Amino acid sequence: MEKIETYRFTVEPFHVDFTGHLFLGVLGNHLLNAAGRHSHNRGWGIDQLNEVHYTWVLSRLSIELTEMPAQYEHVEVETWVESVMKLFTERNFLIRNADDGRIYGYARSIWAMIDTASRMPSDLLALKDGDILHYVLTPEEKPCPIAKHGRIRLTPAAQTLRTIDTYYSDVDINGHINSVKYIEHILDLFPRQQFEQHSIRRFEIAYKAESYLGDTLTFVTEPAAELLDDGTPASLQLEIRKNAGKAEKPDGEPIVQAHIFWA
Amino acid sequence: MEKIETYRFTVEPFHVDFTGHLFLGVLGNHLLNAAGRHSHNRGWGIDQLNEVHYTWVLSRLSIELTEMPAQYEHVEVETWVESVMKLFTERNFLIRNADDGRIYGYARSIWAMIDTASRMPSDLLALKDGDILHYVLTPEEKPCPIAKHGRIRLTPAAQTLRTIDTYYSDVDINGHINSVKYIEHILDLFPRQQFEQHSIRRFEIAYKAESYLGDTLTFVTEPAAELLDDGTPASLQLEIRKNAGKAEKPDGEPIVQAHIFWA
Repeated sequence: MEKIETYRFTVEPFHVDFTGHLFLGVLGNHLLNAAGRHSHNRGWGIDQLNEVHYTWVLSRLSIELTEMPAQYEHVEVETWVESVMKLFTERNFLIRNADDGRIYGYARSIWAMIDTASRMPSDLLALKDGDILHYVLTPEEKPCPIAKHGRIRLTPAAQTLRTIDTYYSDVDINGHINSVKYIEHILDLFPRQQFEQHSIRRFEIAYKAESYLGDTLTFVTEPAAELLDDGTPASLQLEIRKNAGKAEKPDGEPIVQAHIFWA
Repeated sequence: MEKIETYRFTVEPFHVDFTGHLFLGVLGNHLLNAAGRHSHNRGWGIDQLNEVHYTWVLSRLSIELTEMPAQYEHVEVETWVESVMKLFTERNFLIRNADDGRIYGYARSIWAMIDTASRMPSDLLALKDGDILHYVLTPEEKPCPIAKHGRIRLTPAAQTLRTIDTYYSDVDINGHINSVKYIEHILDLFPRQQFEQHSIRRFEIAYKAESYLGDTLTFVTEPAAELLDDGTPASLQLEIRKNAGKAEKPDGEPIVQAHIFWA
């Protein structure tokens, strides 16, 4: 079986922002669909893992773009597995225009396989006699020319930007706030002008813990270290904490970290 | 050319709620895509109308379901035009399972064509010598066995449930709050138990005016006239008003009305 699989989609009218470009959250959703199809077709889909009481958990996602697909454009996403370790696997993506082949960008992701009962990570190499290793394409065989995930670390100088409640539309079939919704809520922190004057060059997100319907989410940002020409941050590190303000854990529990690089 | 067009989609993992069924807003998005493709293929797409400075505006949408499609199901949406008047056209939808043909439900919608400069409604029969009449399928030729849109009218007994701010993810390419997002925000008014114990039998929405990024939306509901066995409302009428609380217009401007019937 081919190690690379190609997933195609068209940029729909309701999936573009006011600049006419695909919402980053919707792109994230397409990447996850591409990953789901690739793994399913190789016997490693969530549905197949569920039968043996395992599931995939997304740990990190980094997307780097020179251009964001625009309304009605046809897009192809190639995805492949770059490496498999005992507790993690790296999956990469190439995002290009299906008509003229120009490359919009790349993405990297890290996944763990967990036991659905214990919620603990499981040994990827032990399942099906290491079958997953058959699908690995090394960086020499298929390069992914963007940096690996960086480290995100907030200091005591970090400040709370906003706290929101979570509702019905935020949660997935498992009752968890869905990973794409976090991306939407993060981008909603920025004013209109940010998207008029800048575009997202790179977006990194790390999923640390789960949150549930009814949890409050507090968005905390680190002061920017570097500014663009117009005085706005060149990049911004932020953390989402759940249920801050409670007596036991006044700062809340960190559940998501992100780092956004603007161009 | 065939008067009916069929649009196909699969219910994606991130498009289902915690019960494993398609989000109503996502279904609405698919219906609008089906409408867009049907009209485009007949020379009446938004892109084609834009060239002559017109565009479609959705005025009403009513969806009635006996069952909501579940994760991974294959769905077919048939759409056709039921009637054309001078300033409005009625478009209907049939929603069924693509594998076994069982019918999930139907939908009705009403559209106006407006002049993009004046934002005033235009004569549908005057454009292209009444070409649009070629695509009409009367109720006798193609029945749509659900009620037409009802009238939604709030009384002074209506009460404010929630006020929210609007952000980047809420707006479409025209800078308006997108019609699907209103559906999401309306369903977010209900607690978890509502979706655990009930399902939406019918959902009506009427779009009265536009709102923009940064507008506040106030959700006002009418006390329920009829209750289900467990004491929860059998149906609920509500209105979304923009920018309430300002001195000139303390109640805000009504922009959307909806009526939800629970089973």
